[in-house]
Amino acid sequence: MESDNLAYMELAIHQAKLASESLEVPVGCVIIKDGELIALGRNRTTETRNATRHAEMEAIDNLLEMWQRDGLSKAEVAKNFSQCILYVTCEPCIMCAAALSFLGIKEVYYGCANEKFGGCGSILSLHSSYSEPFISDKVPQRGFKCTGGLMSSEAISLFRSFYEQRNPNAPKPHRPLVQKKVE
Amino acid sequence: MESDNLAYMELAIHQAKLASESLEVPVGCVIIKDGELIALGRNRTTETRNATRHAEMEAIDNLLEMWQRDGLSKAEVAKNFSQCILYVTCEPCIMCAAALSFLGIKEVYYGCANEKFGGCGSILSLHSSYSEPFISDKVPQRGFKCTGGLMSSEAISLFRSFYEQRNPNAPKPHRPLVQKKVE
Repeated sequence: MESDNLAYMELAIHQAKLASESLEVPVGCVIIKDGELIALGRNRTTETRNATRHAEMEAIDNLLEMWQRDGLSKAEVAKNFSQCILYVTCEPCIMCAAALSFLGIKEVYYGCANEKFGGCGSILSLHSSYSEPFISDKVPQRGFKCTGGLMSSEAISLFRSFYEQRNPNAPKPHRPLVQKKVE
Repeated sequence: MESDNLAYMELAIHQAKLASESLEVPVGCVIIKDGELIALGRNRTTETRNATRHAEMEAIDNLLEMWQRDGLSKAEVAKNFSQCILYVTCEPCIMCAAALSFLGIKEVYYGCANEKFGGCGSILSLHSSYSEPFISDKVPQRGFKCTGGLMSSEAISLFRSFYEQRNPNAPKPHRPLVQKKVE
């Protein structure tokens, strides 16, 4: 199982590399269901001129379009999502974590933490209905299991080379370079 | 100016009515730039089988697709967004508020508060870099001016009729029915 996790995260890292080659901030992800790869995503904020097109939103939309083409009902989509595991190279931001919660994803593995925008432990804990009292009293969002720190050094290396390559005067990365474990 | 605000919110209410007629939870919005209507959006979560297709995300994507077809650069898109005002019948949820912050919108007016998921005052204050110390220390997201309570009774009426019409045993609305003012 541990080796499966590494293999899936390798695929996410590959997506992050493709993002980097397209001059996008290097974040990549994959979605796995029943041991099968069913969606890919990489950050496309520059290409789309849309600051919300994070890797997770790309993968989610790819998957939902596929399920819609297949004619799945809303209930079937919800059931499918509850069996999905997301592997993403950097902790989902607040927007993406809220989206994953609305969709009812089963589990998330991420690489490095996102200390500025992270929604799975760093700034907010949207994955957990329990760990943030100010949220849990009011928000009946679905929690999901979340584990950080899987291949985080590879994710961090990609960020480092991206920002060093591009422009030494560039602002610091939005998704800073921290290793962290969240359960 | 006050009458302009009411006129724009009327258009958002109309979008919410269209959503209701399509058996969607009735939330609608419009985006105004330089006094002109430039985007419409209504909740389409059922039609798209996608729990993230809130009215705001629909309007944002419509707008960004238009600007992409027009060949606008990322900087031009960012500049345009900083001149946009969103009118939405219900307080943006955490996901939508984070998205609006990433995009750098200028201002938001909403109708009724969203006490379960609201990201502009009810649960989190993602519109403000100042009001939530646990956020402001770490998250350099762009704030935006935000005013709630504009035509909230109309927005609430739409929710009420929608939930009463559909199913007396249905769960309570996700966007509960509260009037509130946020500055």
